Amino acid sequence: MTKTLTELRATAPWLLHVSTDIVIFTIREGELRVLLRRRYSEAMSVTCWALPGGYLGPVEPLEQCAQRTLAHQTGIDDVYLEQLYTFGRPDRHPKSRVITVAYFALIPWERVCAESAEGVPHIAWRHVDALPDLYLDHAEIIDQARQRLVSKLQYSTIGFEFMPEQFTLGELQCVYETILGEPLDKRNFRKKVLAFGCVEDTGEQRRNGSHRPARLYRYTAPGEVLYIK
Amino acid sequence: MTKTLTELRATAPWLLHVSTDIVIFTIREGELRVLLRRRYSEAMSVTCWALPGGYLGPVEPLEQCAQRTLAHQTGIDDVYLEQLYTFGRPDRHPKSRVITVAYFALIPWERVCAESAEGVPHIAWRHVDALPDLYLDHAEIIDQARQRLVSKLQYSTIGFEFMPEQFTLGELQCVYETILGEPLDKRNFRKKVLAFGCVEDTGEQRRNGSHRPARLYRYTAPGEVLYIK
Repeated sequence: MTKTLTELRATAPWLLHVSTDIVIFTIREGELRVLLRRRYSEAMSVTCWALPGGYLGPVEPLEQCAQRTLAHQTGIDDVYLEQLYTFGRPDRHPKSRVITVAYFALIPWERVCAESAEGVPHIAWRHVDALPDLYLDHAEIIDQARQRLVSKLQYSTIGFEFMPEQFTLGELQCVYETILGEPLDKRNFRKKVLAFGCVEDTGEQRRNGSHRPARLYRYTAPGEVLYIK
Repeated sequence: MTKTLTELRATAPWLLHVSTDIVIFTIREGELRVLLRRRYSEAMSVTCWALPGGYLGPVEPLEQCAQRTLAHQTGIDDVYLEQLYTFGRPDRHPKSRVITVAYFALIPWERVCAESAEGVPHIAWRHVDALPDLYLDHAEIIDQARQRLVSKLQYSTIGFEFMPEQFTLGELQCVYETILGEPLDKRNFRKKVLAFGCVEDTGEQRRNGSHRPARLYRYTAPGEVLYIK
């Protein structure tokens, strides 16, 4: 006698379920934004904003579940997902015991546009400082992802993941300032990035109105530890 | 009709289970060691070495499960556990689908001795470079915990968690060298630690044979970011 998951839920309310939730950050118009989707929650009989994500299949690896639900719900695929944290408070879901493994990733806004991940219905890129009411503990998950991002920005080259293929050092600095929420010293910033040897001059320049043309760089190597502050 | 977990396992082999496993490091005799326990595995009908850990209770928070199983199996309690990573490969357990949330902690050897956690039967503190065959993917879990430790040592004050209440800077340096597996420059190390302001001179000294007496320090504040290299 094999029972379906629905039957099991009815007979065993203490059954454990596992899901994945995915926090995707981008930077647009000087704002750190997160990808949300509009969903109907059966458990709470409401429509609300939530992170992309869903239940783990019986023989599915965790990260594959995250990639599958992300692609299915938002059209974004083939993105490097880093495991963030596993959230398992017994009361985090009103009807079941659901342990969720959260992942996060950063993508450049240029890629969002190129893959038309902007035009998918029921999704939105929202400023992390102006989030709507969110499903379950998703606000807490986003908060923790943001803390990890800020922390990693200070000892890794994670910030480069927001950049398009070519960028000016001024644009890179803007990304860092947006995430850290504070201005950085321009000369010091340029000096550290160039000394670290993880960017190379493309030989091209960007002309921007009346400003001096700015050199365009590309990211060359995932550096070991770049202490930016 | 409510089914027991054993009944459910028999009727639904694809059922998900959640466990926690705990990696406890200490430093003894210049070796980074990890706490293992000898256990009988029903699933594999063998006795083997494994990390402390066990299944999550239906209404139990994840970290509480880790603390409970650790205390029950090894006598170590009230230790600060940091969540490491969640391991969920579908084939990581031969009989069930078990997702395990791994935690890790560092404790000074002095504390192990004080709490008699050395004398508990069926446990052992083993050198991380000379581990026996381990249960399931526990070798991989330990390896990942070790990588996290090495990484955090370079941008945090995590190394102080191995220290007793009072220690010399030489002893602190030994801990760093043991974990990093390489010698550090003594003057540079002392300068960085003292400049960071996270230790204070206790006014006491340790006399050690024919050597010059060494000042004893204590850890005062969890620093923000101590870049030791």
